[in-house]
Amino acid sequence: MTQKGAKPANKAQDQTATATGKTDAGRFFEDFTLGEVIEHGVPRTLTEGQAALYQALTGSRFALNASHPFARLAGYDHSPLDDILVFNLVFGQSVPDISLNAVANLGYAECDFLRQVMVGETISARSDVIGLKENSDGETGVVYVRTTGMDHRGVDILTYVRWVMIPKRDPKSPAPETVIPELADRVERLTIPRHRINRLWDPVKAGAPYFWEDYETGEKIDHRDGVTIEDAEHMMATRLYNNKARVHFDATLAAHSRFGKRVVYGGHIISLARALSFNGLGSACIVSAIHGGSHTAPAFAGDTIYAWTEVLETQAIENRRDIGALRLLTRAVKNRPAADFPAQGPDVVLELDYTALLPKRR
Amino acid sequence: MTQKGAKPANKAQDQTATATGKTDAGRFFEDFTLGEVIEHGVPRTLTEGQAALYQALTGSRFALNASHPFARLAGYDHSPLDDILVFNLVFGQSVPDISLNAVANLGYAECDFLRQVMVGETISARSDVIGLKENSDGETGVVYVRTTGMDHRGVDILTYVRWVMIPKRDPKSPAPETVIPELADRVERLTIPRHRINRLWDPVKAGAPYFWEDYETGEKIDHRDGVTIEDAEHMMATRLYNNKARVHFDATLAAHSRFGKRVVYGGHIISLARALSFNGLGSACIVSAIHGGSHTAPAFAGDTIYAWTEVLETQAIENRRDIGALRLLTRAVKNRPAADFPAQGPDVVLELDYTALLPKRR
Amino acid sequence: MTQKGAKPANKAQDQTATATGKTDAGRFFEDFTLGEVIEHGVPRTLTEGQAALYQALTGSRFALNASHPFARLAGYDHSPLDDILVFNLVFGQSVPDISLNAVANLGYAECDFLRQVMVGETISARSDVIGLKENSDGETGVVYVRTTGMDHRGVDILTYVRWVMIPKRDPKSPAPETVIPELADRVERLTIPRHRINRLWDPVKAGAPYFWEDYETGEKIDHRDGVTIEDAEHMMATRLYNNKARVHFDATLAAHSRFGKRVVYGGHIISLARALSFNGLGSACIVSAIHGGSHTAPAFAGDTIYAWTEVLETQAIENRRDIGALRLLTRAVKNRPAADFPAQGPDVVLELDYTALLPKRR
Repeated sequence: MTQKGAKPANKAQDQTATATGKTDAGRFFEDFTLGEVIEHGVPRTLTEGQAALYQALTGSRFALNASHPFARLAGYDHSPLDDILVFNLVFGQSVPDISLNAVANLGYAECDFLRQVMVGETISARSDVIGLKENSDGETGVVYVRTTGMDHRGVDILTYVRWVMIPKRDPKSPAPETVIPELADRVERLTIPRHRINRLWDPVKAGAPYFWEDYETGEKIDHRDGVTIEDAEHMMATRLYNNKARVHFDATLAAHSRFGKRVVYGGHIISLARALSFNGLGSACIVSAIHGGSHTAPAFAGDTIYAWTEVLETQAIENRRDIGALRLLTRAVKNRPAADFPAQGPDVVLELDYTALLPKRR
Repeated sequence: MTQKGAKPANKAQDQTATATGKTDAGRFFEDFTLGEVIEHGVPRTLTEGQAALYQALTGSRFALNASHPFARLAGYDHSPLDDILVFNLVFGQSVPDISLNAVANLGYAECDFLRQVMVGETISARSDVIGLKENSDGETGVVYVRTTGMDHRGVDILTYVRWVMIPKRDPKSPAPETVIPELADRVERLTIPRHRINRLWDPVKAGAPYFWEDYETGEKIDHRDGVTIEDAEHMMATRLYNNKARVHFDATLAAHSRFGKRVVYGGHIISLARALSFNGLGSACIVSAIHGGSHTAPAFAGDTIYAWTEVLETQAIENRRDIGALRLLTRAVKNRPAADFPAQGPDVVLELDYTALLPKRR
Repeated sequence: MTQKGAKPANKAQDQTATATGKTDAGRFFEDFTLGEVIEHGVPRTLTEGQAALYQALTGSRFALNASHPFARLAGYDHSPLDDILVFNLVFGQSVPDISLNAVANLGYAECDFLRQVMVGETISARSDVIGLKENSDGETGVVYVRTTGMDHRGVDILTYVRWVMIPKRDPKSPAPETVIPELADRVERLTIPRHRINRLWDPVKAGAPYFWEDYETGEKIDHRDGVTIEDAEHMMATRLYNNKARVHFDATLAAHSRFGKRVVYGGHIISLARALSFNGLGSACIVSAIHGGSHTAPAFAGDTIYAWTEVLETQAIENRRDIGALRLLTRAVKNRPAADFPAQGPDVVLELDYTALLPKRR
C-alpha cells in the first residue's frame, strides 16, 4: 500500500535522463509489489470543455452524448460523457505510477463500466498490482494491474485489468515470484441503466436507423470512413486524457527509439475506432464492458485509421424489453480501407472485444 | 418525407469502398426526390466548450461573443454564440444526408439568421429538396436544398439554400424533371434583435472604434492579417461543426482524388474570413443574412488565408436609431495579402455577400 | 489617455502591407506617449471551455486547477484557473495596442498576481506607458508598459511591466525624451490566499509528495519531460490567449522574416515550462509573482521544450503556518534534455524568475 505523502521509491535512471532528487522518472519492474495498492494523483473534474474537445478530436457522433434533450428522451437527466473518454481519463491517471516506462501496453481485460459519468463529476483512480512475471530476457517484466476509476465520494465507476511490459532498472535484480492472474474471457455481469432507454428513442434523431433486433451474430460492418491522425491532435487528446507518457510527446526522445518518432497513444485509437463505428453502429450508444483488447501494431501521425466490426453475439437482457446487448469485435486498421474486413496483418492496429447496449424496437 | 426509423435507400457503391449492410455511404443524385423533406440526425447541445474551441480555431474577436458583461450592456442576457459557428453547425448536420458524396458545394443563397443562439440550446436540422437538375454529362446532377436549423422545440433559428453537385450512382438511370428554384438576389427581411444595441456600447471595449455611420458604400477594407491553416486545425473545426465528409479527414482516400490531399471545409474558410474581418469591421457584430456565397477555389493545409471586404450598401433600419445594416462582399484569398483587393483569379477562395448589423453612434 | 471611441492614430505602413482606412496595423514607436493610458479591447469571459483547452494544449497537471473537490479541500469555493493562463489572457489583450509590430519582447518584471481568477469571471486589460527609449540605430525604440488585468468591476487582478522593441514608422521622426522606469528586482509583497491551504491537502491526490519544507535553496530540479510543439498547437494556444500578433499565424508573411517561419508566442513557452515543472514542483500550485522573465531565444514548431528549475530562495510567510513561498528560476531549453541544467547558450529559450506558493506539512 502506498502511504499518503510518502515519497515514491522509484528514483531511478532510464536510458535518456537521470532523474534525480524530486523528479519522478516512473516505476521500473522492481518497483512493483504484488498486492500493492497505488492511489493515483490529480483527480479531474469533468466539464463541457473536455466533452467538446473529445468530440472535436474524435468526431464522435453518438446522440446520447451529443444532446441533452435526446438523452432526456432516453431517460437520462442529461447527456452522459462518452464512455471511452471516461475510460481514457481513468487510464491516463494511472500512467505516471504504472506505465511511464512501459515498453508495451500488452492488453486489457475485465473492463466493466459500472455507471455512466456526467459533467461536473470528479474522477480519481487507483491500481491494484495483481500479477507479476519477469520475462526470460531478464531485462523486462510484465505487470498486471486492476485499475479502478472512482467518483469524488470514492465510489467505483469503472474497473479494468491491463498488463504492461516494464523494463527492469537493473537486470541483475532478482525476479519476483511469478503470479499471473486468472482473467475471465468476458465480463459476465453487464451494468445496464435502470431507466427505459427506448421509450422515446427517435432513430432519425439518433442518426442511426437500426435497433438491437436488426443485428445478427456473425454480421460484419465496414465503418467505411477514415481519419488521418496529426501529431497535434493525438497529443492534445493524450493530454486531455491526462496521459503524460513521453513516447507520445517528445520527438527528440523518440528519434532514438525503436520507431524513430512519437507513437499515438493506443487509447486514442480506441476512441477513433469507436467514433468511426457510428457508421453502422450509431445506436450502440452505451459501452457496457470491454472483454479484451490489444494494440496489435503502433500508429503514428500521418496514419489513416479505418475500422470494421464483427457482431460476435446478440444478447438479450433479462427483464429488459427496452434494451439489448451486442458483443462486438472491432478492429482498427491503418492506411487501407477495411471493406474486406482484414483480421490480421501489420495494418491491424487494434482488436477490441466489447459489449454495447442498443435500444430495442418498441 | 423521410419516415422515422426507415432505413435510408442509399446503400450504394462509391469509388473507394463498397458500403454494404448497415453502413451509410451517403446519397447519390438518384436518391433525391423533389419535395422530399429530410430530417437530419444527431442534434447537438451547444456548450461553452464548443464556443471556446471555435475561438481557439478561428481567432474570432467580436466582443459580443467574447464577453457576457459586454453582451449585457448591448441588451442581451448573455453572449450569443458566433453566428457563423451556428451556420456551420446546421450545415454539418445536413452533410451525412446531403453532401457526403458531393463533388462540389456550388453555392449558398437566402441564408436568414432568424435569431441568435445561446449556450445551452440544442440544434437540429432538416432539409427540403427544392430543385434538381441533371448535368449534361449524365454522370452528375445538381441538388438544391433548403436547410433549416431548429431549436429543441422545433422552432426555426436559421435557414438557407445551398446547391451541390452530386454524382449519379448509375449514369444510365433516368434524369429527373429539371426544377431550378427561383432564388432571391438578397434576403429582404432582416432579423434584428429587439433590444437597443447601442445603449451602453463601448467602442474601446469592442476593440473597434467605428460605428455604422462611419462606413460608406464602395469602401474597401483590407483585413490585413493572414492565418495559415494546419490539417489538425481544419479537421478539429470540421468535427466541431459535425461535418463528417471524408474529403476533409482521409488522406489515404484523398491521395487518389483530383487534389491529391485533404480539402479544407469551405465553411471553415467562411469562419476564418469572418474572424479576420474583425480588423476593420469589429463592430459588425451580428450576421443577419448571407445573400450569396461561393467557394471559388479549394484551400488546403499550408495555405494562408487573407480577406478583404467591399461595403456594397449601407442600409438604415426602419424605426431603429440604435443599429444599422451593412451589406458586405467579403473575399478570402490565399497565399498573398489582400491589400490590392483581388476580386478574381485562382487565389480567391471565397466570395461571401452578407449583411451585418452595427451599432449607430448615440 | 486614449479616448473612448477615438480612432487610433496608428494608421501606418509596415513592411508587408499598407493598412489603410479602418484597418488597424498596430502602433509604431512614435505612436506611444509617456504617461498614456491605453484601454485594451475585447474583454473575455472565462469558461470551462478555455480551461479544458489550456489543459489539452499544455498538459498542466496542478491538482488545484484540475479538480473542484481538491480545491475545496484547500479552502477554495472551486478550482481557480491556471495562473499562467490568466497571465497570457491579459497579455493577449494588450497585443493589438502594444506589440503588434514588435521586433522583440524583451522582458518582464514586477508581475504581481493580485488574486486567483475563477470560471465565469470576465477579464479586461489596460496598459500605462511608463518608459520610452529610442535605440541608437534610430530605427527602433523600446517601449515600457505596465499592463493590468481587471475583472468586470474594474478591480485589478494582475499587473506586470514588460518592455518591447518596436520599429519606428519613420526613422527621421524625432526621438522622445528617454525615460527608463526603475524596476524592482523582485515583487516584495506577495499575494497569499486567505484560507488555510494545507488543512486537508492530500499529497497523493496532488500527485506531488513534497511540501514547502522539502525544498532547499540552491536545489536544482530537472523536470525531465519534453514536449514537441506543433504549429496547430501553438496557434490554437495563442488564439486562446487572444494574442493576434501575425508572426505566430502567418507563414506567408513569416517566409520573408528573419526566421523564415512562424515563431511560437513566448507566453506559450512559459505555459509549457510551467506545465513541465509539475514533475518536481507539483505542489507549487499557486504563482504569486514573476520577478523577471526573458525569452532568450525563439522557438518554432518542431522544437521540443524541456525545463529545469533552481530554487533561488525558500521564504516563510509571516503569520502563515499553512503555506510557504519558493523563489524559483525556471529555464526552458529546446531540443536537448535539461538533465545537466544548462544555464545559457542558444538552446535556452526562457528564463523565468518567479515565486510559487506551496503547502507546508501539517
